[in-house]
Amino acid sequence: MAQKIITRCLTHTVPSMRIGITGVPGAGKSTFIEAFGGMITNKGHKLAVLAIDPSSEKSKGSILGDKTRMETLCNDPNVFIRPSPSSGSLGGVAQKTRESIILCEAAGYDVIFIETVGVGQSETAVHSMSDFFLLLMLAGAGDELQGMKRGIMEMSDLIAITKADGNNLDKATLAKALYKNALHLFPPTESGWIPTALTTSCVTRLGLDEVLEKITEYFKLAHESGYYLHRRREQSRFWMYETIQANLKNNFFENEIVQNNLSNYENKVLQGEISSFVAANELMNLYKSQKQH
Amino acid sequence: MAQKIITRCLTHTVPSMRIGITGVPGAGKSTFIEAFGGMITNKGHKLAVLAIDPSSEKSKGSILGDKTRMETLCNDPNVFIRPSPSSGSLGGVAQKTRESIILCEAAGYDVIFIETVGVGQSETAVHSMSDFFLLLMLAGAGDELQGMKRGIMEMSDLIAITKADGNNLDKATLAKALYKNALHLFPPTESGWIPTALTTSCVTRLGLDEVLEKITEYFKLAHESGYYLHRRREQSRFWMYETIQANLKNNFFENEIVQNNLSNYENKVLQGEISSFVAANELMNLYKSQKQH
Repeated sequence: MAQKIITRCLTHTVPSMRIGITGVPGAGKSTFIEAFGGMITNKGHKLAVLAIDPSSEKSKGSILGDKTRMETLCNDPNVFIRPSPSSGSLGGVAQKTRESIILCEAAGYDVIFIETVGVGQSETAVHSMSDFFLLLMLAGAGDELQGMKRGIMEMSDLIAITKADGNNLDKATLAKALYKNALHLFPPTESGWIPTALTTSCVTRLGLDEVLEKITEYFKLAHESGYYLHRRREQSRFWMYETIQANLKNNFFENEIVQNNLSNYENKVLQGEISSFVAANELMNLYKSQKQH
Repeated sequence: MAQKIITRCLTHTVPSMRIGITGVPGAGKSTFIEAFGGMITNKGHKLAVLAIDPSSEKSKGSILGDKTRMETLCNDPNVFIRPSPSSGSLGGVAQKTRESIILCEAAGYDVIFIETVGVGQSETAVHSMSDFFLLLMLAGAGDELQGMKRGIMEMSDLIAITKADGNNLDKATLAKALYKNALHLFPPTESGWIPTALTTSCVTRLGLDEVLEKITEYFKLAHESGYYLHRRREQSRFWMYETIQANLKNNFFENEIVQNNLSNYENKVLQGEISSFVAANELMNLYKSQKQH
């Protein structure tokens, strides 16, 4: 029944802006979403804030805990906040989040934030269901970024250096220049959009208008070029194949004979006793032989 | 029998250096490999040059065509060059290349170059079977990089700006400084290695010694920290799971009922008539129903 509801909702969606937001703990993601989300609803939009954070039990970085830090948004009738499920595989959480997007859009929410902590695989999932990808960074990126995954920077459509106020302002301004230069060295994006960096502060409200301007500009460009629709369709196709693969994997790894032999084969591979390909083929043969009975 | 030979070769491998080399067409990959490979064999190493380039038929960038541009290496008895298969899926080519590494190492080749054109998915495959990843870049990276995939820079252990000679030297020196700054902004690597950029020329031989020094330094660090062995083992494990997934996918997509229905479901998803997940589940059900008869 759930699937039938989602299928019927597909035809009721509004042209929306799906914005992925990531940043390591400490970058002030909740504070940013609280400030920026308020600007969105002030413009007359309805905002849904979703999260993908399969590790939230460990990292304590989930929206569930952050709801207290988003007091204004929580009480805004034009805002829906859905905490990340605190457990489950990334694939499962990602599927539920994608379905939530469809439901929210059918309910009239035309701006969707999908937030994640940029430390695992989840930012790739968020990127694959967003139109626009915003990366929150701290100036003086040293230890703060220890946990951040490589490759995130090159996915980003906009880098916002947060906490650019007080003693931190000079450092943040320098960081902006450095990131702008770095972004310039990357190969062009598929959309034709030129990613950039800017400084923001939720205290002085520096740069918040600019973030909104940049995002608006991006969507204008993407609609005009047809990239918006193209990418949405590609994402749907991607998720169909992704789900098939996830199902095939689950069937395999939940199979009894596979479970009984997997660690043995994995150890032999790790010790260099057999090649990766022989191990894979022998496990496949065991799987097939059991399915035939 | 092939698999048995590979399994027996596994115990005969020497401690080797597997070096992934990528760069867009125009960066002078063949010329670099010719010059740098000569330095390797002069130090008493035996060198194998392998390639992963599933698109070589189209790009004309394969080693097969480049052999004429590697005349010295081709005639060196301490060098083995294996052209990339000119057709086949990336998964298939990658598997054969990984098996070739094992065979070459058993035959006493202690330095392995695995080269690829950095335009598709192949550089991820090369990265996942290399100890060290070298990216060749051109100064004044504009149109030349149109084809380069995002994310490659963040995979790299060393960026060499090629063709840093004549009129191009100043531009290359500036590019080196820019890339150095950019690399500095990335999160740290898992190995603890700090990637850097340098300028090279195969005409003046600028920087070639430095490339070798950097690579030697990396392997010293990786051996001492235990990362070398750790990564090799992780790569073997990765390829076991990768092969299982590839097999599961092949079985599914080669299934007759799946082939007869796939494009229909894909179209419905692209048109937004059904959700990605419903399409995936219905295709899975068709697949399972046929397997039960």
